[in-house]
Formats: sequence, C-alpha cells, structure tokens
Amino acid sequence: MDQAAAARPSTPAPELDARVRALQSSLQARAFDGALILQNADLFYYAGTVQQSYLYVPAQGEPTLFVRRVLERARAESALATVVPLASPKGLAEALLGRYGALPQRLGLELDVLPVNRLQKLQELLPGITPVDVSPDIVQQRSIKSEHEIGLLRESAALGDAICARLPDLLEEGLSEAEFAGRVEAQARALGHEGIIRMRGFNQEMFYGQLLVGLSGAVASFLDTPLGGSGLSAAVAQGVSMRRIGRGEPIVFDFVPVRNGYITDFTRIFSLGRLPDELRRAYGVALQVQDAVVEVARPGVTCSTLYEAAVAAAERAGLAEHFMGHGPTRVRFVGHGVGLELDELPVIAANDTVLEPGMVFALEPKFVFPGLGAVGIENTWCVRADGLERLTLSSEELRELA
Amino acid sequence: MDQAAAARPSTPAPELDARVRALQSSLQARAFDGALILQNADLFYYAGTVQQSYLYVPAQGEPTLFVRRVLERARAESALATVVPLASPKGLAEALLGRYGALPQRLGLELDVLPVNRLQKLQELLPGITPVDVSPDIVQQRSIKSEHEIGLLRESAALGDAICARLPDLLEEGLSEAEFAGRVEAQARALGHEGIIRMRGFNQEMFYGQLLVGLSGAVASFLDTPLGGSGLSAAVAQGVSMRRIGRGEPIVFDFVPVRNGYITDFTRIFSLGRLPDELRRAYGVALQVQDAVVEVARPGVTCSTLYEAAVAAAERAGLAEHFMGHGPTRVRFVGHGVGLELDELPVIAANDTVLEPGMVFALEPKFVFPGLGAVGIENTWCVRADGLERLTLSSEELRELA
Repeated sequence: MDQAAAARPSTPAPELDARVRALQSSLQARAFDGALILQNADLFYYAGTVQQSYLYVPAQGEPTLFVRRVLERARAESALATVVPLASPKGLAEALLGRYGALPQRLGLELDVLPVNRLQKLQELLPGITPVDVSPDIVQQRSIKSEHEIGLLRESAALGDAICARLPDLLEEGLSEAEFAGRVEAQARALGHEGIIRMRGFNQEMFYGQLLVGLSGAVASFLDTPLGGSGLSAAVAQGVSMRRIGRGEPIVFDFVPVRNGYITDFTRIFSLGRLPDELRRAYGVALQVQDAVVEVARPGVTCSTLYEAAVAAAERAGLAEHFMGHGPTRVRFVGHGVGLELDELPVIAANDTVLEPGMVFALEPKFVFPGLGAVGIENTWCVRADGLERLTLSSEELRELA
Repeated sequence: MDQAAAARPSTPAPELDARVRALQSSLQARAFDGALILQNADLFYYAGTVQQSYLYVPAQGEPTLFVRRVLERARAESALATVVPLASPKGLAEALLGRYGALPQRLGLELDVLPVNRLQKLQELLPGITPVDVSPDIVQQRSIKSEHEIGLLRESAALGDAICARLPDLLEEGLSEAEFAGRVEAQARALGHEGIIRMRGFNQEMFYGQLLVGLSGAVASFLDTPLGGSGLSAAVAQGVSMRRIGRGEPIVFDFVPVRNGYITDFTRIFSLGRLPDELRRAYGVALQVQDAVVEVARPGVTCSTLYEAAVAAAERAGLAEHFMGHGPTRVRFVGHGVGLELDELPVIAANDTVLEPGMVFALEPKFVFPGLGAVGIENTWCVRADGLERLTLSSEELRELA
C-alpha cells in the first residue's frame, strides 16, 4: 500500500464521530434500530473509506465497519474504532448478532440508490428486517458541510482555479472540442484531479463537466442541466464533440474539479476574438443574475426566494426565454448542492428548503441562444452566517483572447 | 443539434428490431405482458438513444419510446418507429393505455439496477403491475454480440491500439502516474475516447482503466479486480497516484477504450530499462496462461473449463500464489464480458456458462508480486465458431524501453 496514504486516516476521528452521532439522532427520532450504509459516497462520509464494506450504525452505541475487501486499507483509511473483516455476506447476520446481541428490525437503508435486487438479498441475509428509507436523513445531513469539509471543498475549488488559469495557453483555433478537452484534462490529472464524478441520481453521468464551443452550447441533453452538448456519439450524448474551435464563438468552460472526493463546479466563458454583442450582453446579465441571488441569500431564506430573484433578474433583462436553456428543454433551477456528489441538496429552485450555514451549492445562471451558443457564470458558494462565501475564485471577466 | 449526428440513427433499424424481437421471445417464454426499460446502457441497446425515456416493449407488438427529454434528439438518434413525447411521468399510465389498450400486469423491470424508490414510484404510476426482474434476460441477450456490435467493438479496440502505439513517446522517467495518465488520456480524448465507462454493478467505478507503476500494481482495491492501485485519495481509492515513474519498474497499462458506447479492455506492460527476472518470467507465464485458455475456448465449452485451464497453467509455472492478485485479495476469475458495460457476461470463472458465438470478453491473466508490482496480459476476444478472435491487436511484446 502507498505508505503516505496508510499513515493517517482520510477523515479525522472527531469528524467521523460527529457525523455518526448526527445520523444516530435521526435514527432515534424516526425510531430506527439502526442503519446499514452501503453506497460509496455515504460510506466515505461516515467511515472515511470506500473499501467494499457494510457500515452498521446502531441507533445508539458504536458503529462497526464490516469489510469484505480490502481490510488493511479500510483499517488505514478509516478512523472508526471498529473495523472488522467479513469473509462473506452470509456471515452478516451472525456478525451483527455477535456484536450487538440482536438483529435490527426497523433498519434504515439507502433506498434512493440501492437496487431492488440488493435489497432482496439483504432481506435474505437479515431475516425479519423492515427496510425504511434513510436516504432523506443522509442527504439532508450531508447538505450541511462542516468546516473540515469546507476546507476540502476550498482545495477542490483551488484545483479548478489552477486549471482555469492555464486555459489561455491551451486554447487554439482549429482544435476539436475533444482535443481541447484532452489538453485541459491532462493538466487536471497532473494537478491531482481524481477523475470519477459521483452522482446520486439514477442514470446520471458526467465526465469532467461540459466544455462546449459555439453551437454545441445550445444543444440540450438528456441530463437535467441547462447545457448539454452533442457528445461524441449517441451513446454518450453529452459533452464534447469533434466540432472545431473557431473565432468569435463562446467557449463554455463548465468544469467539475474533484479532489479528496470533494466536488465543486464552476463555469467561465472564453473566446478567440470578440463575441457577438448579444452574447456579451447576456454574459453581463448572467453576472447580474448571480448578484441578485447572492444579495438575497443568507441563512433562513428559502431556495424559492433565490430562484425567484434569479428569474426576475433574467426577466428584467428581457432574456427569460433564453434562461437556463431554450424552448422545451429549459430547466427549472439555477443551482444545485455539491459535495461528495455533484447532485446534492439544496436545489436552487421553487422549493421550500431553507438555507442553513454550511450549505454549499453551485449557482449557474446561463443563457442559451440557438444558432449562437451559450454563455453564463457559475461559482460554488458556501452559506455563511451573513451571506454567501465564494469558493471558486477565478476571475469572472469575460475572456476574449486575441 | 450536431447535424452529422442528426443525419442518421445511431443503430440501424433492422439491428434494433432484432434486439427487440429477441427480448420479446424472452418475455413470451416467461409470460410477461411487457418490459419497461429505463437504464442508459439498456436504453441504448434497445432504442439506440439514452435520451431521458421510458422504453415500453410489449410481449407482442411494437415498442414505444416515451421521451421526457430531449425529444428531437431521441427521434434523430433512435431508429424505432414510435418515439413520442411524455410531458410528465404522471402521464405514463394514460399513454400506455392509449397505445396498448391495457396496462401491463406482469411487467419486466431491470431490478438489478433500478433503485428501490424508483420501483415504488413506478408502482404508483402504474397501479396493478407485478414487477418481475427482466435483467437476467437482458444481460444474457446482450452477452451475445451481433456482427454490427462486433464491428463497433473492433473500432473501440482500434482506438486503444492507436493510443498504445503512442505510449513510448509519452513515457518519461520522473513523471507521476497521474501526469503520465493525463498525457495518455489527452491522446485518447483527441482520438475520440468518450470518457464515461458504464458499469452495471452497484458501487462499481472505473476511470479509463488502471495505469499503475511499480509497487502501485501490487495494491489491491475495493473493486473485484486483480489490480487496483492506491488512487489519489481514500475517496477514490483506485487507479493512479502521485507515485513517480522510475527505472526497472513494471508499468501496467490497463486501458479501457470507449467509442460509440462500446467498451473493450486490454493490458500491456512497459518499463524504462530492464525488469527484474522474476517479473520477466511471470510475463511469459501470463502469455502461456492466455494461450492455455485460448486453446480450449470455443462454443459449447463452459467458463469453468477456461478458468481451470488458466489456473492449471499458473500452477504449472509455480505462480499460483501470485495469480490474479496476492494473498486474501486474489480474485477468482480470469476474465469478464465487455460491451456497452465493462462488467458483462460471461465471467470467466468457476461457473457453468457455456460459450456461444458472438460472446466478447476480456481475458486478463495477471501476476502480483508484493514489493515489486504486477505484470500480465489482457486482450478482448470474440467467440467464433472455431475458437477465439482477438480484437485488441497491439503487439504483445514486453516493452522494455531504453
């Protein structure tokens, strides 16, 4: 094993303890006997490892990480006190009985991500359980980031800023979107981008973000995102194509940095030469929309308030028809939570979620113009006691390069 | 939309028709009223598109693709005759009633990948259905590739071969694994690698494959794979690290090309300077293991026969302890099906699956030496009437560069 990685756990013990205790409060409030955590992002959050494991969190008492593979890595990576081997899932009931004296009945499971067949197998392994969905508690808890997490998100954002700073040197007329993406991604990897972007939603997929040039920015995709891109084939159907970079076209650099598992999300607009006036103006409006949202955002305010502020600012500028897509593919949100997954809470849309300190979300006012492309701004923000703190620090200047 | 992509469907109509008819045979044999296909890889297989859709395949009659977004893309990408809009999932029952006169009762669903909550919502949308798992039929059907698919797999393999040929120019002493990976991946993107690697298994994740240098090759991961790598953090816990490339170390280039959605998988070994004799010898044994499997593989033979031939060849060479991992993290297979997903059937392990013409699998005999690293060979093979055809054509020579 990599000695540096083995030297200390990924997540400090007090941090894991606080997370587990918060989950236990939910379990107690909902009269669960315990929760069994299986999905990678949640495992990493509560155990500090994604080694193939079952994490059992009793409503009260100490959690146990039952590890199928790799035990030594799980022990090195996790600061949990009890990390034990589990040779086969068939031994799970006996292992739980041995440690806790009884099998849980009302058992929390991540029913938003757990496949039906996996649940059936668990019901065979653990006879008598009543599975109840614990994912609403988990995603709610995970939407409020600790200072430890905010520090990691800041590092993720800094990775993105470092890559963004190199863009002018990588950009060249005549490159295909795919070639340009390759250049950018090579820089990202060298700087430590982890590649895999976790998403919670069924069928959701993302590869580094969306680097879209000119008309590509106006192609909507199957994803619930304002921009999509045509992709290299109908099989992937989003992101870069073999379209070549020309002059005077908007180059949307919508990028998703990942470091230590933590995801941020930001967008900047570049071009070779001057953009058409309509797009220049729309970019300015995107900044105004962002300002309008930031102005109202603070703890206690609902997501609806933010979303309405965004829509109103777009309407005032006469760009409502172009806001967050165009025509029937417009999406009805202007931001989304980020963290260990790209699609976290809060969703900045018409909903009653109340902002709380520690929430972190990407705010992405974008405008789409059929026949021209897309422009917009996106930053990742952290909700603080007195308003929003910006984590993605790249200059917001429209970058019209020579 | 990209005009070239819009010009013709991704998958020819006769090809889709044959796939749908084969699924309908299964549905009839198992007395299903129909199947509702939702997952991206399966949608692409049966409809030629991953646009956000519900594909209803009745046991008899014509299928319908109900599209939530993006309708125009779905119509351009899919050669299915009936592609209709679905404004909201709430309209699904009415839409099915309108087209088929009755709601299905015994309904096939992909229960191996469908999250529990999604099934619950479907049961609300379609009252009276009895959900039955149709995924065994789908993955079995998809394991037998058509000539159309084999052609696409050949293109995928050729993409990998083109990248492999450039490796000697990209490799440099002192680069980190991550830097080297970035260089390789930039080439891959420029040549049209699609990035996203679909996997069917819960919690399975893969990013381009595993480019592992020296000791990294001996680090097992949470994945059920012979090699793993330490990864850039405990959050990702596989693949490249910041370890630097030295001389005389094995460089495992385990790479997963993706083109038009089709995945192949292959491994070649490079080094700067001469490898230790133990590894050189083991590489030769890996080729012998491959030969031993290829010799027995033909239609009608079980996977067990192939697996036993592999294990026997490793044992004859006295390397059983190093085969497919080391110690408790050894995996008990030597190959896996590939296609639209990386983890398809057949699994070349101790099971009774019988090889059939058109099956395509990666065969990956590898040896792991703690303190030294890993070596091995991997190719993607297609089962033909008279044996195996190799699709990944890169030279199998051990590449000890100056």
